[in-house]
Amino acid sequence: MRPIITLLTDFGTLDPCVAEMKAVILSICADASVVDISHEVERFNVRMGAFLLTVATPYFPAGTIHVGVVDPGVGSERRPIAVETDRSVYVGPDNGLLIPAAMRQGIRNVYELGNRSLERNAISSTFHGRDIFAPVAAHLLSGTRLEEAGGKITDYVKLSFMDVQFDQRGVNGEILHIDRFGNMITNISYEHMGKLDLSGKLILRFRARRLPLRFVRTYSELGRNELGVIAGSHGFLEISCREANAAKKVGAKIGDRFGVGTA
Amino acid sequence: MRPIITLLTDFGTLDPCVAEMKAVILSICADASVVDISHEVERFNVRMGAFLLTVATPYFPAGTIHVGVVDPGVGSERRPIAVETDRSVYVGPDNGLLIPAAMRQGIRNVYELGNRSLERNAISSTFHGRDIFAPVAAHLLSGTRLEEAGGKITDYVKLSFMDVQFDQRGVNGEILHIDRFGNMITNISYEHMGKLDLSGKLILRFRARRLPLRFVRTYSELGRNELGVIAGSHGFLEISCREANAAKKVGAKIGDRFGVGTA
Amino acid sequence: MRPIITLLTDFGTLDPCVAEMKAVILSICADASVVDISHEVERFNVRMGAFLLTVATPYFPAGTIHVGVVDPGVGSERRPIAVETDRSVYVGPDNGLLIPAAMRQGIRNVYELGNRSLERNAISSTFHGRDIFAPVAAHLLSGTRLEEAGGKITDYVKLSFMDVQFDQRGVNGEILHIDRFGNMITNISYEHMGKLDLSGKLILRFRARRLPLRFVRTYSELGRNELGVIAGSHGFLEISCREANAAKKVGAKIGDRFGVGTA
Repeated sequence: MRPIITLLTDFGTLDPCVAEMKAVILSICADASVVDISHEVERFNVRMGAFLLTVATPYFPAGTIHVGVVDPGVGSERRPIAVETDRSVYVGPDNGLLIPAAMRQGIRNVYELGNRSLERNAISSTFHGRDIFAPVAAHLLSGTRLEEAGGKITDYVKLSFMDVQFDQRGVNGEILHIDRFGNMITNISYEHMGKLDLSGKLILRFRARRLPLRFVRTYSELGRNELGVIAGSHGFLEISCREANAAKKVGAKIGDRFGVGTA
Repeated sequence: MRPIITLLTDFGTLDPCVAEMKAVILSICADASVVDISHEVERFNVRMGAFLLTVATPYFPAGTIHVGVVDPGVGSERRPIAVETDRSVYVGPDNGLLIPAAMRQGIRNVYELGNRSLERNAISSTFHGRDIFAPVAAHLLSGTRLEEAGGKITDYVKLSFMDVQFDQRGVNGEILHIDRFGNMITNISYEHMGKLDLSGKLILRFRARRLPLRFVRTYSELGRNELGVIAGSHGFLEISCREANAAKKVGAKIGDRFGVGTA
Repeated sequence: MRPIITLLTDFGTLDPCVAEMKAVILSICADASVVDISHEVERFNVRMGAFLLTVATPYFPAGTIHVGVVDPGVGSERRPIAVETDRSVYVGPDNGLLIPAAMRQGIRNVYELGNRSLERNAISSTFHGRDIFAPVAAHLLSGTRLEEAGGKITDYVKLSFMDVQFDQRGVNGEILHIDRFGNMITNISYEHMGKLDLSGKLILRFRARRLPLRFVRTYSELGRNELGVIAGSHGFLEISCREANAAKKVGAKIGDRFGVGTA
């Protein structure tokens, strides 16, 4: 089986940064299959990057290595890390980016990267993606053991999306991501949904507004311009609007909190 | 030879949907070479997606499997299908998306997909690209026979671009695509062009306007801001404007009809 | 080791042009690993394309073949060429695009492509990327010798970024590229920087304006909205602004000249 490395960054596709990471990877592990998760994370938005890693990486085969680079602290004291889980390894900065995805797979150990022989000879102070994370990941893919890459740590930066609260009106959560179509992906999971009565009329509480909302199985059940709540394809509740941009309609952005309930 | 799968969707590259499809494909067929055709089809624009498949897929080697997902009816009753041609297999929704490309290669059989063992265990109601089309395509690439994937049907949804009409003034056709540079790609083919006198002054008739037009072999023959008609690289007439956006200049959008002639 | 081809174009990712080039490449060399450098070069901006090739291609392994297509003269008399360097081969139009990158690796020979048997049978007048450059590159990757591809020439089009001038106030250079974040990448290299006193207050001279500037090691040393000069990850000075778009702030575009100095 060909080994797989995935890349998630906020570098975009105009600049050759991602290509340089792939060049470094293929120089070390010529047989690697490199898959782009997304390079359009909002600049320095660690939470958004963490969410995309969390939803996308479970679909990859066991043994895949995931490189994430959303790194406002590059060049400062923040540490480079590798997170070993029950299925795969995540490589990137110690700023929380890798943690929610890794937690979902079960974290075994976290290593602070420090073996200079696995990195590029000349390390720029602004591009650790190319100079540290990509070459270390490629060496791991080629068989280097994690113990050779660095020492174990436990004081890595934690991050969690899971601040979901229930009250008598329903559930309160956070908008973790707004997709290309304006669908608002929330942190309310299938399990949370089981505690809600979704059969009748629902209310979306957002800032000072109360908007009617209906739980549907597919977009096509919604009327034009109607707001709906759907069990999204990633295991989270999504708030959508048929053939319109739901986030623009309600004026929401990533990180906003909201409530859904029967009152 | 490494097996090839191509992907065409309206998912964009911000969200991890395409990456999830690739993850599913590589989990089933680790050796696959996955090639992106485009993920920037206008949302739910089945005709635009069908056009891009039609022009791009002939260049791939025989045996390539093409997955197309522009799917406004996902979650409703529309069927998942696979279309077998003389050169390759197309997998996607039964809404016409795959048909013009497949017709160009010669359709042998169309199958309604229905073998649950080839699909992902948990099927979301909104993401059949990942849960049905990608895994079925990967199984086909790995050697599963089409007869195992489903039963033959003949009542699939048809779609054709080929509504081209001649009159005494010339030819009337449709704008199938507007490319990144504003070139308008039409449904008038090389064969149609043989019936026209292209040597003299031409007129573009668009809505109530009549605009001068000249047939040229290359963009560089055009003067700045001059409208020209060119035998495009995909076998269709293209209406272009040197160093300017022709579609913006004339106010055209995909699907508009127009005439070209000597009067 | 799997052979690598890279692609750099101004075709964007909406249209299937890049996919068609990949289809042609994989038809000839099924085992190729195809890596995108960028397809978002500004239309017909040969200097911008040349810069991206120059910074990205050194990271690829020896033996890589680089295809560049930014080609305002397609269909006219401009020649198709292949440039052999000490590490790799560059294939594309004879308009300067390939030269700065190739010079950095050491140019051995330049060949005018002319062997029709290596090209596609039907050559469009507007898409040499698919019909000439991609198939020739794939044949070279598969073992065809450069001498079979064409004859040597010496009168190819030259291009250089290196017009850097020193005066008593400091150094004067050019903005070669503006990245996704608005960082202005200049043609002033690490070697040039060694001649400057970077320890104190600096002045950016741009058009009639004089703006304060500070040399820093990482973005995080800058205050919000402060302009800084940094040793960029590609070996060139970059002018940046923390958490803001430096190019917009000063009103600069690619190709503008500027000065940096102590007065």
